[in-house]
Amino acid sequence: MTKRSALSKIGEFGFINVIKKMVKTDGSVLRGIGDDAAVLRFDKDKYLLLTVDMLIEGAHFRRNMNPYDIGHKALSCSISDIAAMGGLPKYAVMSVGLPKDLNISYAKSLYKGIIDTANKYKINLVGGDTNRSDKIIIDIALVGEVEKNKLVLRSKAKVGDLIFVTGFLGGSFKSGKHLRFIPRLNEARLLVDNYRINSMVDISDGLVQDLSHILEESRVGATIFAQAIPIDRTADLKSALYDGEDFELLFTISKKESRKLIKDALENNFSFSIRPIGMITDRKKGFSIVYGSGRERKLTVKGFRHF
Amino acid sequence: MTKRSALSKIGEFGFINVIKKMVKTDGSVLRGIGDDAAVLRFDKDKYLLLTVDMLIEGAHFRRNMNPYDIGHKALSCSISDIAAMGGLPKYAVMSVGLPKDLNISYAKSLYKGIIDTANKYKINLVGGDTNRSDKIIIDIALVGEVEKNKLVLRSKAKVGDLIFVTGFLGGSFKSGKHLRFIPRLNEARLLVDNYRINSMVDISDGLVQDLSHILEESRVGATIFAQAIPIDRTADLKSALYDGEDFELLFTISKKESRKLIKDALENNFSFSIRPIGMITDRKKGFSIVYGSGRERKLTVKGFRHF
Repeated sequence: MTKRSALSKIGEFGFINVIKKMVKTDGSVLRGIGDDAAVLRFDKDKYLLLTVDMLIEGAHFRRNMNPYDIGHKALSCSISDIAAMGGLPKYAVMSVGLPKDLNISYAKSLYKGIIDTANKYKINLVGGDTNRSDKIIIDIALVGEVEKNKLVLRSKAKVGDLIFVTGFLGGSFKSGKHLRFIPRLNEARLLVDNYRINSMVDISDGLVQDLSHILEESRVGATIFAQAIPIDRTADLKSALYDGEDFELLFTISKKESRKLIKDALENNFSFSIRPIGMITDRKKGFSIVYGSGRERKLTVKGFRHF
Repeated sequence: MTKRSALSKIGEFGFINVIKKMVKTDGSVLRGIGDDAAVLRFDKDKYLLLTVDMLIEGAHFRRNMNPYDIGHKALSCSISDIAAMGGLPKYAVMSVGLPKDLNISYAKSLYKGIIDTANKYKINLVGGDTNRSDKIIIDIALVGEVEKNKLVLRSKAKVGDLIFVTGFLGGSFKSGKHLRFIPRLNEARLLVDNYRINSMVDISDGLVQDLSHILEESRVGATIFAQAIPIDRTADLKSALYDGEDFELLFTISKKESRKLIKDALENNFSFSIRPIGMITDRKKGFSIVYGSGRERKLTVKGFRHF
């Protein structure tokens, strides 16, 4: 196992492309690997959505954190993925790895975090696999559904779209938001129920990273404005751009449609903030940020977070 | 974390019961936690099936085993679960944890084992999550479907049913079968397409353990005959009874229906062996094995395999 060919050199995103090329799918798969969730032809009116998220002790949480919060997070990550497609979560199965000497009350609290979150969002927890493991591992697969006319993909951003985010970004690890965040399910459903949303993702890898997924899949560029970005009061601009695990929604919408959205947000007092942070541009313009000074800087995407 | 309250004392099956009581499900869930796969109301003619299996280095395989086989096994365990319900696998998502210093060719071979198996069984691999981890972890969730009239549950064994197994049992770890087994998907479909199968499981935890699941869920007893059990030539009776990971099918069928099955098996030369090993009895009779000598012994179920 030489360093030369170790996984750390190729990274998660490079590796996903290797895998994508080997996989064969049939006509029932509208979207496979590469969006927040897979989209599968299901019945006349709805698509089936399928996603999975794994949390590993050490990488995503530490054992001395609140086990209830860890359980809550494990399911909420997947709920956030389904929300970002415009869908509703329905069924979950969980695989859990637990150390042999783990206290039962710790394990119960962890499961209670998962189960309470499932019950809160009317998700049926229908199966599980429990294993012995040195580190705590929680992997939850979530099946959802979405009405065909409400599905939102990463790949449909249009030149001229305004880019919006919900909530405030950055500092999620420091503030503990990454553990206790409320997945933006109701917010996403409000958006897709009432507006034509062209593209959407949840911000799990950081604003720059996740917006770059939309740009790549939609083959467009973007300009964002530093002063427009809603920064969490515990964070700074850099954190808001690059920190992961905000689990806010990032979406694009035509200018015309956005007028209605903004008007409704002001009049109806949405319970959550939405902020325009930039615009979708022609692909040739690339991906850049404009600072208050007027200076423009190209944004480059790292994308090796998990290795 | 005192020993007194450690997970190792309560075991997987005890723990599943604790969880089951906390979980709320709605009317769309025909079977949740407790069968090989969950059964969900889906459309007029079909149920949706959902299952998940996690393999962890050290517990289920060692790193020096063939990574292609490990990948094959990771998906095949879930295929076996879907087969045991009488269904067909359709969509899979995989979460993989890989050590940072793992050789890329090892990781590719592992993925190739998963993907080749998916392609072979026409399973659409539609998503994944790759993470850094000290130990190799593979968790695959599989969505399948089954025609309503072909669904087979653990809970429908009837007093008087004959108990059958496919293939030969025992010694799976020693022979390497646990890594390279062919999930009995075609065999299970042949059975549900042509016969009324009352109950079925795949043998993953061992014959005695898995038959006890049928007995418990169906509220019946069973008598099995030592000399009727098809023992792998590398194994002995004890292995055939208690070893895990044979991934053969264990099913019950009425005597009348079994005549047709046996006749067809003889005439059509099934490509796999099926053997009657015993009978379903009244619950009061309990669960026992009869030896060649005529001696009868009560079978007790351990069921703490994973902790």
